[in-house]
Amino acid sequence: MMKLKKITEIGVAVKDLEKATKLFVDFLGAEPGEIITVERYQMRYRMCRLGNVDFELMEPLRDEGVIAKFIEGKGEGFHHIAFAVDDLEQTLSFLKEKGVGLIDKTPQQLHGGKYLFVHPSSFLGIMFELIEYAEDVRLP
Amino acid sequence: MMKLKKITEIGVAVKDLEKATKLFVDFLGAEPGEIITVERYQMRYRMCRLGNVDFELMEPLRDEGVIAKFIEGKGEGFHHIAFAVDDLEQTLSFLKEKGVGLIDKTPQQLHGGKYLFVHPSSFLGIMFELIEYAEDVRLP
Repeated sequence: MMKLKKITEIGVAVKDLEKATKLFVDFLGAEPGEIITVERYQMRYRMCRLGNVDFELMEPLRDEGVIAKFIEGKGEGFHHIAFAVDDLEQTLSFLKEKGVGLIDKTPQQLHGGKYLFVHPSSFLGIMFELIEYAEDVRLP
Repeated sequence: MMKLKKITEIGVAVKDLEKATKLFVDFLGAEPGEIITVERYQMRYRMCRLGNVDFELMEPLRDEGVIAKFIEGKGEGFHHIAFAVDDLEQTLSFLKEKGVGLIDKTPQQLHGGKYLFVHPSSFLGIMFELIEYAEDVRLP
């Protein structure tokens, strides 16, 4: 049985990172982190920490890429929910065994750790990201 | 400055509560709670606890009411995010002072505590619920 222990991120697709950051900081008291560019997804993002969770505000770098396409189709807003897992390989085996639809068929790697995205069609349109964090990551 | 301390719920609009519960339990290891009917919103819901957060699975009681309308417009899926606040009256004053759009202009009351919904147009389409929990509520 897979058991998710801790919500870590809520991903939000935004058109204007600075404007979105201001919203989360001024109105909700979030603490903004550094801006990080991820060419692989043609986006840049910033974590805005709100209590025990990070809002990952993601802005397209140009008029293509996954975030640009998402905004084009659905508009700005909720994109994904991330949970920390202890062992991503084990989690992946469990999900495959259960026949859960996946976006990533193998663990992906970025600074911060390994991760995979579950297909939103598997969970009522909600996209889950499961992350095995690197040890030096300061979780929210 | 308002500061949100703890995410407590992620609200999910669902067509079939039993089916959705099975998904969260079997595939993600969630712990399902009791089904509670809220005539005011013409829905019934069940919390499915997943680590340190509750997924509130909300099913319309009939073909009308806020959840039925939500599903009609946007389909099943992500509906709102709730955070615990210490003092809802103070939070409300802060939000009004800042000119943040609100669904509830005064604190609402249900078993579990006082709450209000912020208008999604204020936060990039994301609907925030802010809750001052009753003391006997076991938070996730």
